[in-house]
Amino acid sequence: MKISEICKILGAKFSGDDMDITGLNSLDIAGDGELSYCDSPKNAKFLKNTKASAVLVNSALTSDVPNGVKAVAYDNPHLGFAILSKYFAKELLRDNKPALISDFAKVMSGAYVGSNSKVGNGTLIMPGVFIGDNVEIGQNCTIHPNAVIYNDTKIGDRVEIHANAVIGSDGFGYAHTKDGRHIKIYHNGNVIIEDDVEIGACTTIDRSVFKSTIIKKGTKIDNLVQIGHNCELGENCIVVSQTGISGSTILGRNVVMGGQSGTAGHLVIGDFAQCAARAGVSKSLDGNKNYAGHPIVELKEWLRLNAKINRFFKDN
Amino acid sequence: MKISEICKILGAKFSGDDMDITGLNSLDIAGDGELSYCDSPKNAKFLKNTKASAVLVNSALTSDVPNGVKAVAYDNPHLGFAILSKYFAKELLRDNKPALISDFAKVMSGAYVGSNSKVGNGTLIMPGVFIGDNVEIGQNCTIHPNAVIYNDTKIGDRVEIHANAVIGSDGFGYAHTKDGRHIKIYHNGNVIIEDDVEIGACTTIDRSVFKSTIIKKGTKIDNLVQIGHNCELGENCIVVSQTGISGSTILGRNVVMGGQSGTAGHLVIGDFAQCAARAGVSKSLDGNKNYAGHPIVELKEWLRLNAKINRFFKDN
Amino acid sequence: MKISEICKILGAKFSGDDMDITGLNSLDIAGDGELSYCDSPKNAKFLKNTKASAVLVNSALTSDVPNGVKAVAYDNPHLGFAILSKYFAKELLRDNKPALISDFAKVMSGAYVGSNSKVGNGTLIMPGVFIGDNVEIGQNCTIHPNAVIYNDTKIGDRVEIHANAVIGSDGFGYAHTKDGRHIKIYHNGNVIIEDDVEIGACTTIDRSVFKSTIIKKGTKIDNLVQIGHNCELGENCIVVSQTGISGSTILGRNVVMGGQSGTAGHLVIGDFAQCAARAGVSKSLDGNKNYAGHPIVELKEWLRLNAKINRFFKDN
Repeated sequence: MKISEICKILGAKFSGDDMDITGLNSLDIAGDGELSYCDSPKNAKFLKNTKASAVLVNSALTSDVPNGVKAVAYDNPHLGFAILSKYFAKELLRDNKPALISDFAKVMSGAYVGSNSKVGNGTLIMPGVFIGDNVEIGQNCTIHPNAVIYNDTKIGDRVEIHANAVIGSDGFGYAHTKDGRHIKIYHNGNVIIEDDVEIGACTTIDRSVFKSTIIKKGTKIDNLVQIGHNCELGENCIVVSQTGISGSTILGRNVVMGGQSGTAGHLVIGDFAQCAARAGVSKSLDGNKNYAGHPIVELKEWLRLNAKINRFFKDN
Repeated sequence: MKISEICKILGAKFSGDDMDITGLNSLDIAGDGELSYCDSPKNAKFLKNTKASAVLVNSALTSDVPNGVKAVAYDNPHLGFAILSKYFAKELLRDNKPALISDFAKVMSGAYVGSNSKVGNGTLIMPGVFIGDNVEIGQNCTIHPNAVIYNDTKIGDRVEIHANAVIGSDGFGYAHTKDGRHIKIYHNGNVIIEDDVEIGACTTIDRSVFKSTIIKKGTKIDNLVQIGHNCELGENCIVVSQTGISGSTILGRNVVMGGQSGTAGHLVIGDFAQCAARAGVSKSLDGNKNYAGHPIVELKEWLRLNAKINRFFKDN
Repeated sequence: MKISEICKILGAKFSGDDMDITGLNSLDIAGDGELSYCDSPKNAKFLKNTKASAVLVNSALTSDVPNGVKAVAYDNPHLGFAILSKYFAKELLRDNKPALISDFAKVMSGAYVGSNSKVGNGTLIMPGVFIGDNVEIGQNCTIHPNAVIYNDTKIGDRVEIHANAVIGSDGFGYAHTKDGRHIKIYHNGNVIIEDDVEIGACTTIDRSVFKSTIIKKGTKIDNLVQIGHNCELGENCIVVSQTGISGSTILGRNVVMGGQSGTAGHLVIGDFAQCAARAGVSKSLDGNKNYAGHPIVELKEWLRLNAKINRFFKDN
């Protein structure tokens, strides 16, 4: 799409030479032909180093746009980006290429395998499973009935996905108009699930906006868990039932999240940290410690605090 | 069904003229030919104005039944109503009428579209989707794989429903016998989803007992959310993952419910109210304010209270 | 499998006569030909009375193994047991025997009924339902679309299972290696659902390791609930949406679990106990009382404590 057309869609002022925009991307990974956006001074450092061909910026940031990068001034760059994302969204149904299913895989009745998808040796796809387009599933996996795997998901070997789990659904991301409407940010990223991961029934893992939501090898996820867009779970994590990991949060290796725990977005939880059942994680956490409560504190503090509260108010 | 038969089913005393009862309904909306019930003095105001043809009431309320409305005395009217609801339940599988699917809609392999249902222009129904009887789906919707839409659901235009979501399942409503059994209240209402709504993967929205559970236009619901029977969500609400809205609760417009938050039933949350992640809403809330905690308080109070508690017990 | 082979798999020392091991089981129910394990002195009482033919024990417990039971010394018996469980796991796809479907049952298009499974009179199996091998479903049940019922599940009469519920998925059980990997414990048990149970949409009930996860008659479970492996729910319980019951917890009869409540594992909750919404149950509870909060206390204490906290810190 020409940048002049983009300006027309947004109602932004176009000036200078026209150019082709082939995709949208974040400031840090955008490359030649791509449009990015910057809506906050705190991201100015990314803006100064971006390799994008063009950026949406509000007027306060125009001077931070590097030479050779076309600046498109727009009052609310995040909203502009959301509006444009629809035009650059990948098709839900791609061209009709054959799937590549190993002769040593078994795809049962009523399962659907989309265009250009691959299923490896020894993998079992049970009835009612949906596998979208351009999906790769490795060897010796079991995909239980009615699980749904959206387009572009990559799955390693010996992965087990239980019934009615959903992998690669759209992340929950919107920009907001002045009159309170929510404009969907189309998610062109995907989900990567490494070897030896197990995913519980009715668990949902959202695709990323750009790159990938990643579940690293050996991690085990229970039933009814939510993993938000752009999350990264390290190797050998344990995520117990009904936990929710909000978008862009990173878990180190061997992190344990107890049942019904949850995290805010954009946090980092260190290697071998353990969060008790119902822990509400609202800040990043050092590794190798046990935590509990909401607000989150170290487990031993939480136990001590609750004991103190009970003792104090017994007599008061 | 004759009211004499109804009395026989319940073991209630029948007297006076017999009459036909064609359906059950709540006191405020019941009309000619319908039976309602009243089991509490606090609903006597509805009883006094009801247009129902007959009502189940316990003996204390008989005198509040208006002239011309037949009173059936029954010790536990709510239980009586539940027992009868089975006899007036709509059939799960209706008569076999053809579905009306637009030539410009696409229904993929393995999807099921029930009797008398309509699918509009530009709508995509993906594999494994179940659409019950008498459902209406507007234009340019996407229903992702294995989503289930129960009978009588009405869906507007540009609605996106993600994989394995369930719309219109029975509400969780029972009356209780003296010996502790739970008698199902059959739900004859439906779910209405207005234009531009998005519903996440594995989210469940229950049908109402009578009228409709309503999700108003522009509202966005994340994954693994529960919306109870008879709820109404206003325009442009944001409901983050793993939130639960209990039955008959009403959200105003542009209400934000943070992740893993929840509400009790029969509450009203005002326009533009924001409930933080994990908020436990046990009372109705004014609009235009931010809330947190359980018990729920204003967000700033919750922050202050937690800071005070920590400071105080550090030294005590 | 010969016990000499088992020792070889584990790298354990084999001595004495060889013998056939036909299955794995827990100490208390293992019988002739079965191998069990004991990894903790607190289970020594079960070890002393076991009828197993052989046991994995660490060296500290060897002397507690009864005469006539073969002791296999292994540093981490729980891990050894997990490693072996794979070899004794039941096949996911069994021999291809016909299903026994009553002439008075209805199995709709796109439903799958596995080998040797039985469906009783008057039962309706809706589109997209998956019923595994060796499943039994009684009379007058309704299994809503896309529900998934794993192998070996037993379901009584008049049971209603809502859309996208999953019954009998693998429990979330692993043993851990020294280098932090999680070794799956294959679950050979099943789920038993008694008469008149209703199970909500997207609810998940895991199978047990050995015996059965049991939902007793008349119990009603709402949407998005998690029931862990080996749980037992008594008659006429009410489990409201988004509740999680951790593994091996036992609920008495007529227990009420409010919305978004949860329990730790291996607890006992007494008959007629009621846990408020969001209650976090971390210890066993007496029956006939109301509870709330996390840490859990009696409801009246929780209300009192919160009132006291608010009053105190208003002035401090």
